[in-house]
Amino acid sequence: MVLEKEINFILALDELKNVNRRNFNLDNSRRENTAEHSWQIVVFAQILWPYAKDKKQIDLLRVIKMLSIHDVVEIEAGDTFIFDESAMTGKYERELAAAKKTFGILNEPLSSDFLSLWIEFEAEETPDAVFACAVDRIMPFILNVYGDGVSWTEAGIQPHQVENIVGKAVRKASEEMGEAFDILLRKAIDEGKLES
Amino acid sequence: MVLEKEINFILALDELKNVNRRNFNLDNSRRENTAEHSWQIVVFAQILWPYAKDKKQIDLLRVIKMLSIHDVVEIEAGDTFIFDESAMTGKYERELAAAKKTFGILNEPLSSDFLSLWIEFEAEETPDAVFACAVDRIMPFILNVYGDGVSWTEAGIQPHQVENIVGKAVRKASEEMGEAFDILLRKAIDEGKLES
Repeated sequence: MVLEKEINFILALDELKNVNRRNFNLDNSRRENTAEHSWQIVVFAQILWPYAKDKKQIDLLRVIKMLSIHDVVEIEAGDTFIFDESAMTGKYERELAAAKKTFGILNEPLSSDFLSLWIEFEAEETPDAVFACAVDRIMPFILNVYGDGVSWTEAGIQPHQVENIVGKAVRKASEEMGEAFDILLRKAIDEGKLES
Repeated sequence: MVLEKEINFILALDELKNVNRRNFNLDNSRRENTAEHSWQIVVFAQILWPYAKDKKQIDLLRVIKMLSIHDVVEIEAGDTFIFDESAMTGKYERELAAAKKTFGILNEPLSSDFLSLWIEFEAEETPDAVFACAVDRIMPFILNVYGDGVSWTEAGIQPHQVENIVGKAVRKASEEMGEAFDILLRKAIDEGKLES
């Protein structure tokens, strides 16, 4: 049938609505799922782009493509809590296999295009990937700071972990995002959402 | 605070995760929410773009921007079932007011940029908007055809309604999408998901 692979792919992606992340929605009513998160960072990237350090070198369309598809690997590989060091072991290999399987549903060149974008995002080296990664990291951080921070408190997360995982990525991408991070990290510590 | 308006905006948007649409997820476990839907059409647009009639005139980044923000009006105005003619009355005015309020959280030029994209999408006239609208309409159609079609059967939706609302928009944007629509509409009728 016409568009058969395209339709099979988007149907396979529907499962991402059932992948729950550790993080909670702002109103703390439930954990957010990965599909919702992917949408929110696609919008946030458009708003934060003017503040990116390497703005002239950044292709916003590529950034948005990366952000919209980088988590589809979780359909096969599940969500890995970013502060869980033991679970992070072997994560790349598991997710690469998942990426090949899921993107492989599509025809070329789209299949390889998505796989390349996914690999580039994970490497966090190009200006597009550095910025995309910062947006992906700061979003759950903001939800924790303005929400109840349950995904932090239930795991006993400490400020240095947030600095290592979020702060570094954010500062690499944008001075303004780095400034906001510092202020909000202080707020989270003062409110007892991070162990001190 | 630095990035205060940007953060306020993305926090306001979190509520879209709580706006449920009539449509169900593919596995029929629950109705999908608007945030998830917005993500799925952002991805689907990337895949269907090669099949757009006016491909050379279409700016994929603008299409994705439109799709990612066109439903944020539902935070204030709620989701309106597209086949409910009486509820569709006054929808534009309600949603325009909502768009001005929500996008108004942001600084210029972003606030006006988003409002313009929203107005352009709703008018369904430019090549970008025609294509974006087709993607937005065909996605829940596909989920109904491959799922249980509950949002259709519970409302007694008939084939001519789906043709009017989905078929016309899809055919305007892409021959291949129109062909797929025809095949899948037949399948839905054969499977008793639409009243005949």
